[in-house]
Amino acid sequence: MNREYPSAVLERAVGEFSKLPGIGRKTALRLVLHMLSRPEEEVSSFGRVFSTLKQDIHYCKVCHNISDADVCDICANPKRDGSTLCVVENVQDVLAIESTMQYNGLYHVLGGIISPMDGIGPQDLQIASLVERVAEGGIKEVILALSPTMEGDTTNFFISRKLQPLGVKLSVIARGVAVGNNLEYADEVSLGRSIVDRIPFV
Amino acid sequence: MNREYPSAVLERAVGEFSKLPGIGRKTALRLVLHMLSRPEEEVSSFGRVFSTLKQDIHYCKVCHNISDADVCDICANPKRDGSTLCVVENVQDVLAIESTMQYNGLYHVLGGIISPMDGIGPQDLQIASLVERVAEGGIKEVILALSPTMEGDTTNFFISRKLQPLGVKLSVIARGVAVGNNLEYADEVSLGRSIVDRIPFV
Repeated sequence: MNREYPSAVLERAVGEFSKLPGIGRKTALRLVLHMLSRPEEEVSSFGRVFSTLKQDIHYCKVCHNISDADVCDICANPKRDGSTLCVVENVQDVLAIESTMQYNGLYHVLGGIISPMDGIGPQDLQIASLVERVAEGGIKEVILALSPTMEGDTTNFFISRKLQPLGVKLSVIARGVAVGNNLEYADEVSLGRSIVDRIPFV
Repeated sequence: MNREYPSAVLERAVGEFSKLPGIGRKTALRLVLHMLSRPEEEVSSFGRVFSTLKQDIHYCKVCHNISDADVCDICANPKRDGSTLCVVENVQDVLAIESTMQYNGLYHVLGGIISPMDGIGPQDLQIASLVERVAEGGIKEVILALSPTMEGDTTNFFISRKLQPLGVKLSVIARGVAVGNNLEYADEVSLGRSIVDRIPFV
């Protein structure tokens, strides 16, 4: 017998965990053995949540963020500014921007960014629905808030070409030196951008 | 509403993951979102494995290692030396010793070590069954292979007091400097032990 573990059940459980990103086989074994030390109800409840996760989770039909209702809390909130749309890659980015308390408009969650290396093209993202949403009118400004990477820039460029004919104001989040950081520790590219994109001193 | 996430289903899934040791809420969210990007069958198969994990897993009734059969492959193997017993804390330690290819005897898996801080006493471990196994006869040597920590030493001491009346040979794994390590990097305690426990040069 050429199995690594003394039991096929253990083997399978470790295999499932180690499929997850950032979890190797040693960590997976540690997690499974931890579970075995927990009460049966706790472990089976863990399993039940994931066995129906994909069926249970819903997306807002307006902004495509994860939501329990057909329309998410942010889209349904009449106090939010419906004329401003912030385009983000995923749920984490919505949470990150919400936690700044600096934004009161709506979102549009793309569900990824254009990445030819990973085989993700514009048709895999919520770009058509973004164009549709802007074309319906009522939106004055679209803020592109994607990561400042090559893929983010490519996606920004693709979206801007689609939205420009619609006459909406397009902006992109500022790139520059991080607040609170010492200048000498800033990377050259960010520092360079912060000089090129300088703004009037209040 | 004062929820951190835009959906109760997401909240619950993140909560389940972040109960695991070493997984915080940010990592948990990343894992859940990764799952949402995977095919439905893959995610539900993950869930099913854990919803019945505790029922599916069995322990060898001889050595208490995890096993699919009533008696594990090691205990059932007639080529292994049944007169030597190696006492270890858990499954990982069996795997670690097996991978050295230096041991051909049997094991006894305690399922933990005595740790008053965590409320783990001798009655929570497979110590009574160890004493019983030795009392049945046939075992000539018991090797204590617990971690060289305070808890390991306490457990070693407790077991040795129980086994000494049975007249079995007791030994403990060697502690000293790690093979291949430069002496100047060895910690003082290990280096001290390696001098005290020096062995004849072959």
